[in-house]
Amino acid sequence: MELFKQIPLYRFLALCNESGMEKTILDCGAGGDSPPLSLFADYGYSTCGIEMNNEQLKKADQFGQTRGQNLNILQGDMRHLPMRDESTSFVYSYNSIFHMRKSDVKESINEMKRVLKPNGLLFVNFLTLKDFRVGDGVDLGEHQYEQMEDDELVIHSYYDYLEADSMFDDMQLIYKEDRVLERKFEGEWIRQGFIDYIYIKSK
Amino acid sequence: MELFKQIPLYRFLALCNESGMEKTILDCGAGGDSPPLSLFADYGYSTCGIEMNNEQLKKADQFGQTRGQNLNILQGDMRHLPMRDESTSFVYSYNSIFHMRKSDVKESINEMKRVLKPNGLLFVNFLTLKDFRVGDGVDLGEHQYEQMEDDELVIHSYYDYLEADSMFDDMQLIYKEDRVLERKFEGEWIRQGFIDYIYIKSK
Repeated sequence: MELFKQIPLYRFLALCNESGMEKTILDCGAGGDSPPLSLFADYGYSTCGIEMNNEQLKKADQFGQTRGQNLNILQGDMRHLPMRDESTSFVYSYNSIFHMRKSDVKESINEMKRVLKPNGLLFVNFLTLKDFRVGDGVDLGEHQYEQMEDDELVIHSYYDYLEADSMFDDMQLIYKEDRVLERKFEGEWIRQGFIDYIYIKSK
Repeated sequence: MELFKQIPLYRFLALCNESGMEKTILDCGAGGDSPPLSLFADYGYSTCGIEMNNEQLKKADQFGQTRGQNLNILQGDMRHLPMRDESTSFVYSYNSIFHMRKSDVKESINEMKRVLKPNGLLFVNFLTLKDFRVGDGVDLGEHQYEQMEDDELVIHSYYDYLEADSMFDDMQLIYKEDRVLERKFEGEWIRQGFIDYIYIKSK
């Protein structure tokens, strides 16, 4: 079976499997050339994704198609999910939600909570203040920056260790991990900082 | 395919697969009821393990047997590996090596490097000073403590962020991750601190 580079989602997948809930999952920011929805499809999940960028969406679609999977990714905006309340067992957003201003991140989290079934599980991760790019680019205040990425200007929002917690006051924490990693990227050593959260939606 | 709880080893497995080297792997501290060697066996690896504790060894053996795998785990001491120099492509020790004094850890690391082939990959992780149990138990100096675990007195050695680096001066770093995680364990919230390393053995 294929391995995916989004390693923290293996933990989420294991918890989803153990929960015994219906295997329906939504990815917010689902595009790209190695879409993790395919991992969930491998494990028998009905998948759905939201992706803003049409090019990234097509890449993910193609990846699924070559594996006989229909990942069911829709073009859209995670601040306004085209789904009913409490309609999916599991929701995640991996390395994606922090590409918005913090006010938009909050809106998106609220949407993810809205579509999640009671007892459903949520995975989301954030960039942290330990990341090497904090301070780069155009300062938009509150640790939000407009930075160059792949020759495009994109927003990155950075969070301190406790800051994001308050968005989940109505949920129960299962797992929180603060990670600082060093690796080579395009020939240069980089240091990235992430916080991963897994929450359960209270009944 | 079965999922394993030793999540960081998925990253190591992916790198081992990509390396194109012969699929031979050694686990130092290979016992227990969910032996990750089984994950590597699932991906076509010839596995070998070293385990000090006979009970843990038997559990791992049984796990393999019920899946038709011979994990090939030997009773032994990772400070003296019963293997020839440069005889295996990949070596790892997961959540295990820090159950010794630091001088023994160093000896074990030297053994792991010795049996590794040139260009081979090594994964090893350490407890860090951010762990909630630092300071508990009998202080043996240099952040080494004798602590109760499962009703047994065991040693835990804790490292600061840079401390372990020097044991790998003759290798090339691929990946380093400093992790602090919070989760419930037996009804209590705990905070664990780990550093994961992946190194390649220079030719």
